[in-house]
Amino acid sequence: MFVLPPLPADASSLLIGFSGGLDSTALLHRLRHDRAFRDHDLRAMHVHHGLQPAADDWVAHCQRVCDAWEIPLAVARVEVSHHAGQGLEAAARHARYAAFAGAMTSGTVLVTAHHLQDQAETFLLRALRASGVDGLGAMRDWRPFAKGWHWRPLLEIPRAALENHARQHGLDWIEDPSNLHAAHDRNFLRQQVMPLLEQHWPHASAALARSAALARESAGLLDQEDAHALAMTRTLDPSALSVTALLALPPARRARLLRRWLDERALPPLPAEGVRRIERDLLPAVADDEAEFAWQGAIVRRWRDLLHASPAQAPLPAGWDVEWDTRSPLRLPTGDVLVMEGAHWPAPLRVGARRGGERLRLPGRSHTHSLKKLLQAEGIPPWERLLLPLLRDTDGELLAAGDLLLGARLDAWLRQSGATLRWQRTGPTVERLNAAR
Amino acid sequence: MFVLPPLPADASSLLIGFSGGLDSTALLHRLRHDRAFRDHDLRAMHVHHGLQPAADDWVAHCQRVCDAWEIPLAVARVEVSHHAGQGLEAAARHARYAAFAGAMTSGTVLVTAHHLQDQAETFLLRALRASGVDGLGAMRDWRPFAKGWHWRPLLEIPRAALENHARQHGLDWIEDPSNLHAAHDRNFLRQQVMPLLEQHWPHASAALARSAALARESAGLLDQEDAHALAMTRTLDPSALSVTALLALPPARRARLLRRWLDERALPPLPAEGVRRIERDLLPAVADDEAEFAWQGAIVRRWRDLLHASPAQAPLPAGWDVEWDTRSPLRLPTGDVLVMEGAHWPAPLRVGARRGGERLRLPGRSHTHSLKKLLQAEGIPPWERLLLPLLRDTDGELLAAGDLLLGARLDAWLRQSGATLRWQRTGPTVERLNAAR
Repeated sequence: MFVLPPLPADASSLLIGFSGGLDSTALLHRLRHDRAFRDHDLRAMHVHHGLQPAADDWVAHCQRVCDAWEIPLAVARVEVSHHAGQGLEAAARHARYAAFAGAMTSGTVLVTAHHLQDQAETFLLRALRASGVDGLGAMRDWRPFAKGWHWRPLLEIPRAALENHARQHGLDWIEDPSNLHAAHDRNFLRQQVMPLLEQHWPHASAALARSAALARESAGLLDQEDAHALAMTRTLDPSALSVTALLALPPARRARLLRRWLDERALPPLPAEGVRRIERDLLPAVADDEAEFAWQGAIVRRWRDLLHASPAQAPLPAGWDVEWDTRSPLRLPTGDVLVMEGAHWPAPLRVGARRGGERLRLPGRSHTHSLKKLLQAEGIPPWERLLLPLLRDTDGELLAAGDLLLGARLDAWLRQSGATLRWQRTGPTVERLNAAR
Repeated sequence: MFVLPPLPADASSLLIGFSGGLDSTALLHRLRHDRAFRDHDLRAMHVHHGLQPAADDWVAHCQRVCDAWEIPLAVARVEVSHHAGQGLEAAARHARYAAFAGAMTSGTVLVTAHHLQDQAETFLLRALRASGVDGLGAMRDWRPFAKGWHWRPLLEIPRAALENHARQHGLDWIEDPSNLHAAHDRNFLRQQVMPLLEQHWPHASAALARSAALARESAGLLDQEDAHALAMTRTLDPSALSVTALLALPPARRARLLRRWLDERALPPLPAEGVRRIERDLLPAVADDEAEFAWQGAIVRRWRDLLHASPAQAPLPAGWDVEWDTRSPLRLPTGDVLVMEGAHWPAPLRVGARRGGERLRLPGRSHTHSLKKLLQAEGIPPWERLLLPLLRDTDGELLAAGDLLLGARLDAWLRQSGATLRWQRTGPTVERLNAAR
């Protein structure tokens, strides 16, 4: 009988992904016959992908096994649609995990039967996609998933041990001829490459899985150092890092930090070209003050000593100008929104892009100031100025620049009437405002 | 024409390893026809392994090529002996690199033609040996070698580019039927596995080589942090680290430090079992004060707050006792040596192991002290006490314990006669004494 690590104390229930194949049958049997696991509200879920004619028979088989072992079985019927850019296998996997997630409550541990050979294949697949150590680390035994955890207790157990276990205990299982659970690339490795490797290196799978474990260990160390180094480069604005602090780091560390930071900002993964461009064009001391790198709808910019990242937004169209009845929010062409709450300006306002030459009288001042100088003094980066909606009254008098600069007249009225004006930004900037509260 | 990176400014001369095969022929041609390289005292060396009947023809071919290109060629005839535990290919490689090293002077750059496919194979071979990120990093383009450097400028160039280059320029090369330059494992990968991988992933080699480069980058970052963390755990004695400082580190970092430190100490590589044993038995706060782990002639021991590493030495045999004429050095059964220099004790001395109960009168003291207490007070670890030769005069009076504790009588005589007594330790301890100077 293969040995399983103990469960952490805070696991509330176990949900086993049960295809009826060898791996999950051996796992389910092993968990079922060990009090340490059985007492954790052990349930099984079989996902019916509706793609094979035999799928109904598999459901019946799984039901028989679970009835015999007195394990509650849920059957999830999912629709697998072949999305653009996603293979059928990937779509099936997504549907499967969505079904698992739907059956989980707080603290539920989803248990799947990925084993040593799966891990070795994952390592090779990652290497064949030119992964760094994070990718080469392959599958973790524990990861946060849905409302609970995803546990893969068999990653160090060879498939042969599972088969031994199954034969010893006279278990029945389904041979899935479709290999639906494995993508095309993985099947090629499994059927063609791994047997060849094992012919020459009998312990190939164990060696590759061990390399993966060592890579995972190294990635963990690097992550800890990344978190520490990133903290040293942060500014008060989460969408900006300090260029001076970034330049104090080795380039390889800097590349890791940038990726981690952009991931935190929910921006798309930075391509290798992005790292090169940031190094070459954005970070040097003599960098162009408005240097930038854009990719997949995101943009990184250098401004003063800051490196800014945000979703790319087109500026307000030149000459854009509309009337705004402040009783309802106004959607700007940039995707941002203007909202007035608490009270409403007695007449329609005009909202438009900057044209240049605007002047604004700030609260408590008797004279007007050039808007350009005010924005510079506030440290508003140039690209933000292009997104900035100007509010005027119908006579053309400038009342406010977004909610960044309020003129004396609007400011007095807002205070008097208990109203607020908000320029709601799209994307991470919204978080930024929330974070600043 | 494939692009080569520039040479560093301090390269004094270039020595090309020239087998006459495609890779090194393309490399030699490329270097020969670029002034940046040709002006660096470009030479070629062909190693004649004397293993194939055709080897003499290869020498003639290489000579013709070099004559035509006006490149000085040295032919090194080496004897390849099949050592125990070393395959013929490995023996040939060692002999080849020894020949290269012999032809190098200070600043010579040995240039070899390892290319992208070689790098991809190395990555896979390392993974199949369960390597961590240091191993997965595969070959570096620059490494210190002999009196100069070893440069592999083609690691990112695919073999096809070399072949194009060779055909474009009408070059001739030898097809080596013996594949002597590649070990058995590598040949299996090259002939069986890589073609299969490339059938499914046309860019497999580039991807694997890229994963290697990323692993190398990560290994570099980890190394920097290792050096920093190791510095924090060192003590005045280079053969000992602080247990308290080690315990402040994450276990994965600790494992890396231990390996690095033992490598510095010129001790054999610590096996995974050694890391586990050190973690489990040697480092815990409640560890047995004399816990140890021994492997391949080396030993790591816990004592007080220190983790000691040294070559394993058998203690002096119980009851061992010999006469020593101090005019010549005395080799002890432990491999250590006793030396008296500057003057010699007027009569023979007796040298022997501790028996227990010895007492010694220190300089300036009127009474004797227990040797046991003196050694404890000096902080001499228990295993060192077992190696310690005691010097007595022929009457049996204890004169000294090694050179660690000198009795009043011997001390006075040494000072008077300008003599010194030294207990020379074998292995790293000698370095330790030197380092302490």
